[in-house]
Amino acid sequence: MDYFALPVQKLIEEFEKLPGIGRKTAQRLAFHVLNLPEDKVVGFAKALVDAKRKTTTCSVCFNLTDADPCRICSSDKRDHSVICVVQSPRDVVAMERVREYKGLYHVLNGLISPLDGTGPEDINIKPLIKRVAHGNVTEVILATNPNVEGEATAVYIAKILKPLGVKTTRIAQGISVGGDLEYADEVTLFKSLEGRREI
Amino acid sequence: MDYFALPVQKLIEEFEKLPGIGRKTAQRLAFHVLNLPEDKVVGFAKALVDAKRKTTTCSVCFNLTDADPCRICSSDKRDHSVICVVQSPRDVVAMERVREYKGLYHVLNGLISPLDGTGPEDINIKPLIKRVAHGNVTEVILATNPNVEGEATAVYIAKILKPLGVKTTRIAQGISVGGDLEYADEVTLFKSLEGRREI
Repeated sequence: MDYFALPVQKLIEEFEKLPGIGRKTAQRLAFHVLNLPEDKVVGFAKALVDAKRKTTTCSVCFNLTDADPCRICSSDKRDHSVICVVQSPRDVVAMERVREYKGLYHVLNGLISPLDGTGPEDINIKPLIKRVAHGNVTEVILATNPNVEGEATAVYIAKILKPLGVKTTRIAQGISVGGDLEYADEVTLFKSLEGRREI
Repeated sequence: MDYFALPVQKLIEEFEKLPGIGRKTAQRLAFHVLNLPEDKVVGFAKALVDAKRKTTTCSVCFNLTDADPCRICSSDKRDHSVICVVQSPRDVVAMERVREYKGLYHVLNGLISPLDGTGPEDINIKPLIKRVAHGNVTEVILATNPNVEGEATAVYIAKILKPLGVKTTRIAQGISVGGDLEYADEVTLFKSLEGRREI
């Protein structure tokens, strides 16, 4: 199909490569871009390249960063004795949004998933062990997602960290705040019951 | 919120500006881009800028083009005596997909819509009249969308073209091919009945 002018066609194809963007949406986005003033388009293009070129992975926690070590790892306002282990940089963002957690992070960049062929050596578990072994870490919070892979990864890491004598905790699972018992699934309800605390 | 590394944050904001892209999707797209190899990202950025810089509006039919006049207007394989009037360049693409139409186009770049403050002088009606008056055009097909604005615009143009003695037609409205009478709305069914033809 080359009904579109060639440069437009190319842009549509680029948009189509993005996850969750189909042909129609790609066309809509491309035409939106064509209607923007040129400096806005150049700004968008620059943001793309900058994001790729200027961000690296923090050599300590493996979070995405534009400085190494990242701003969290190098901050003296953070509690360096606590490490929160998450699956991806996006989870760091989610945790930071809470504004309550003051420790450090460790981004695994994946979860153990035999079905996908991802083993413990494919994610950043070894560097985590090193951090715990060499630093003055007192607690490791396992904040992987509460699904099969996240659970398996948490259990695996907990087992490995045990000999190091560090306190290892798992984030609580239960009914969401604002959630409804009636609509909660059985497993969540069970976890919620199991994790009950005295008030 | 600056939990993300700054260049990532900027990219997320750029994606968020696109129509139909919310915060979550923008984050997903940005992280997808970060996981691409650098040359792919540069290619995407280039496609953006190229699409904007290298496409202009055809001075004859107002379609988007990388050459002026556009490839359709300058083609000697097309029937220059028929002009199909459409709302936008995307409609040209839709028509071209049929592979049946061999005439030229005229892109209005909008529809008459008093509610949105768009009058006849805000869309490319005048240049259409010029084309019809000066060229050897025998038929003008009004292919604006079958909604209120599209209908109003078609009627308006038909009225204006009448004194010029050119044949003016409107695309047929009716049940979609593969459609179901049971689920068709009354107006469509009425149009379908009204436009019935002997077989």
